[in-house]
Amino acid sequence: MRGAAPEDDELVPDPSTQRKNVLLLGRWAGPGALEGHFVDRIGVVDTMFSCVNMGDIAEERLHLRPDCGERFEILRRTVPGFKDLGVAAKQMIETDGCRIVIACGMPGAAALDVACAHEASTGILLAQMLTSTHVLEVFVHMSEASDDAELDALCRNRVGDHADNAYKLMYAPEELRQRAGMGVRQGGRDRGPVAA
Amino acid sequence: MRGAAPEDDELVPDPSTQRKNVLLLGRWAGPGALEGHFVDRIGVVDTMFSCVNMGDIAEERLHLRPDCGERFEILRRTVPGFKDLGVAAKQMIETDGCRIVIACGMPGAAALDVACAHEASTGILLAQMLTSTHVLEVFVHMSEASDDAELDALCRNRVGDHADNAYKLMYAPEELRQRAGMGVRQGGRDRGPVAA
Amino acid sequence: MRGAAPEDDELVPDPSTQRKNVLLLGRWAGPGALEGHFVDRIGVVDTMFSCVNMGDIAEERLHLRPDCGERFEILRRTVPGFKDLGVAAKQMIETDGCRIVIACGMPGAAALDVACAHEASTGILLAQMLTSTHVLEVFVHMSEASDDAELDALCRNRVGDHADNAYKLMYAPEELRQRAGMGVRQGGRDRGPVAA
Amino acid sequence: MRGAAPEDDELVPDPSTQRKNVLLLGRWAGPGALEGHFVDRIGVVDTMFSCVNMGDIAEERLHLRPDCGERFEILRRTVPGFKDLGVAAKQMIETDGCRIVIACGMPGAAALDVACAHEASTGILLAQMLTSTHVLEVFVHMSEASDDAELDALCRNRVGDHADNAYKLMYAPEELRQRAGMGVRQGGRDRGPVAA
Amino acid sequence: MRGAAPEDDELVPDPSTQRKNVLLLGRWAGPGALEGHFVDRIGVVDTMFSCVNMGDIAEERLHLRPDCGERFEILRRTVPGFKDLGVAAKQMIETDGCRIVIACGMPGAAALDVACAHEASTGILLAQMLTSTHVLEVFVHMSEASDDAELDALCRNRVGDHADNAYKLMYAPEELRQRAGMGVRQGGRDRGPVAA
Repeated sequence: MRGAAPEDDELVPDPSTQRKNVLLLGRWAGPGALEGHFVDRIGVVDTMFSCVNMGDIAEERLHLRPDCGERFEILRRTVPGFKDLGVAAKQMIETDGCRIVIACGMPGAAALDVACAHEASTGILLAQMLTSTHVLEVFVHMSEASDDAELDALCRNRVGDHADNAYKLMYAPEELRQRAGMGVRQGGRDRGPVAA
Repeated sequence: MRGAAPEDDELVPDPSTQRKNVLLLGRWAGPGALEGHFVDRIGVVDTMFSCVNMGDIAEERLHLRPDCGERFEILRRTVPGFKDLGVAAKQMIETDGCRIVIACGMPGAAALDVACAHEASTGILLAQMLTSTHVLEVFVHMSEASDDAELDALCRNRVGDHADNAYKLMYAPEELRQRAGMGVRQGGRDRGPVAA
Repeated sequence: MRGAAPEDDELVPDPSTQRKNVLLLGRWAGPGALEGHFVDRIGVVDTMFSCVNMGDIAEERLHLRPDCGERFEILRRTVPGFKDLGVAAKQMIETDGCRIVIACGMPGAAALDVACAHEASTGILLAQMLTSTHVLEVFVHMSEASDDAELDALCRNRVGDHADNAYKLMYAPEELRQRAGMGVRQGGRDRGPVAA
Repeated sequence: MRGAAPEDDELVPDPSTQRKNVLLLGRWAGPGALEGHFVDRIGVVDTMFSCVNMGDIAEERLHLRPDCGERFEILRRTVPGFKDLGVAAKQMIETDGCRIVIACGMPGAAALDVACAHEASTGILLAQMLTSTHVLEVFVHMSEASDDAELDALCRNRVGDHADNAYKLMYAPEELRQRAGMGVRQGGRDRGPVAA
Repeated sequence: MRGAAPEDDELVPDPSTQRKNVLLLGRWAGPGALEGHFVDRIGVVDTMFSCVNMGDIAEERLHLRPDCGERFEILRRTVPGFKDLGVAAKQMIETDGCRIVIACGMPGAAALDVACAHEASTGILLAQMLTSTHVLEVFVHMSEASDDAELDALCRNRVGDHADNAYKLMYAPEELRQRAGMGVRQGGRDRGPVAA
């Protein structure tokens, strides 16, 4: 999917549901809507500023789920920079009916970028608190990697892990609870629990 | 309870009330609901990031109260990281009817973690201010301990103390007031009041 | 009053009105309520963390006013730490009808305490902005004093001065205005106005 | 007016309208109210902490406008410190009907004062954002001047300039627009636009 | 347009629509309103503090769009400083019906300016979060350029790029999405995507 983002593909990225989805009773309905089958929406929003296509990584990971397209579909948006993520996530929840959003950004390494990252995080925080909906902040700082390959790999791991988390927050909260206190890290090796 | 978090146990962790609780008139009713006996809910939310199962410590401490299960029950959730605590606590108050929440997190020791901890705290603060409900922030910084054993002990003490505080805020505010200005510390030795 | 905080004393601390106050038409009515005499409420909230009983100092100062008990009464609460002050103040305004609140805390001297104090201040700020009601933040930093006696004296002066300010904001705003630009300091010697 | 702030003068400082103003249809009406002439309110709030009477400077500047008293009148309040400015401004907008407020404060030079100034600014910001009304923050930092005379002069210039800005935001926005990008500074020499 | 900002030009800057626009059914209608053709509004707000007329640059760039005047028109405001941008943007959205706003400011190079810039950004953030509408923050820091010519050029590039972004957020979101992860920079050379 990387590099190909045709406009008519935007709202219903899964080909199998592309022509059949309709908005029904305020929820976005898949092929089986008339038989009472509704489809949830998971939002993915990323930036042009990032030098890795983080949104595509999130989409790809979510597409691995067998119930993608049936149980949930993906709504994708791209904004200029990470300060635009918060309001975009809020719109995707309020207007587009997303039940959870994955917000991907890549703060630069300059001193000014640190303050900006804090403001971007505050926007994502406010989007959550004003909608009572989870928005997973997935930031990969350029300063975390020493070259392009490492940056790309770090993005793939962290964004992928958070896409899994979004799925579990929606459909498998018990999997999160079973890992409480396990020292889990997104995008790196787990720290693990304290030695007994 | 550590390590065992079966899904059907999630909402009604106290076995004695497990099958009988029903939602009645907007409050969660225990075994005696039809006789006018209602059960409050205390929320406990923690993270997979933490390397100590802080949520279990809070639950264990609350279970020591003789009125656990009768007067109140515990609702438990686990989220990926501490930035997810604020919205989770808000959902537990607004949607699940918790009258107070204990939010447990463990900030890392890196420089980036300090800014993240501030954002996580702001989320917990907003959950309180937007619901007018106490959410006790229980953070144990990894930098506060020099090894695993110390970290574990610090968590046990601080989380336990805050679980007691949650109970007292609900049912025994006079016990808090009697200790006003006493230099009380959660998770360490009390500083004590100024010398007279 | 220090050290004595019986539970039945909590809402109506002034003995003369203790048994007679009733809630009437949404305001808390004193002895003369049925003759149209209503009593305002001033909230005082402090912490167990502080090593000086700051709340008692505020109460004592307010009791010196001849109209205490007739014109206003005092509602007192104590919370664990200063991060709990904001939501407590909001509850005292929204639920308990306080028209102004004095929120007392004592930030520690460690580096982590500085960030925490900022978050506590933000909570007190939000309580004000979301209720359009004054909440006077009275913080005495442990780093401001070199020993217990100095800390105690500083608390007595600053808390007392702010208790006076709370009274004046309610009943004598012209006294504040007459001191505009006078370089007034709470808890220390006034700086005074610029030399003419 | 400096030093003289009689109570009965507070709401209607312009003598010519002092006895005739009435509240009509939710707006504060001047002498011509019954003939359909309404008077706007501009709020001025300052602090006792400041060592210059900044509020009086703002009032004096606004009184120089020929339409003061006819088109607008001034509502003045003084609060203890700059952290109290935000909620006071919000009350002046919501309760007293001010259409714009000038909020004057003087942060001290100590390290703690810097954090406090940020919190005070956040309060003024929230007052604006929650009421959709301009509140002009006029802060003069004690560290900006080397002696009393310089501090006094800086206050006179900056407060006066902002009083003019408040008037223009209300009645002459085109004057602001004509100076877009002109490098205008309040309280000092203008920087001017970039060289062409 | 630089330097010429007549008052009667303010609301309908495009001459071709100047006399014909009317407010119809809550939207601002252009020449074809009675035939069902409505005109969107894009807001542009800048400051007198800036030493480059950033608002004019934004307006000029938007005027290059062939559908300017027909599909959208521009509403322009100028405020004193960048702390005034947030509430101005909120008013332009709530009261004037702008569907997106470009907010331009130029933080100074002094230490105090850094904290002020953070507060200004927070205001712009809150304007977005409280209206669920994009407000593009376009800040050019004086410290980014070494002389006037460089500062002017940087403003032209960055403001222009963001004016394009505003247009695309409204009318061509697919163009943003096609550049996801491309390392795009406003006002400078693009960083580009990671090497494959």
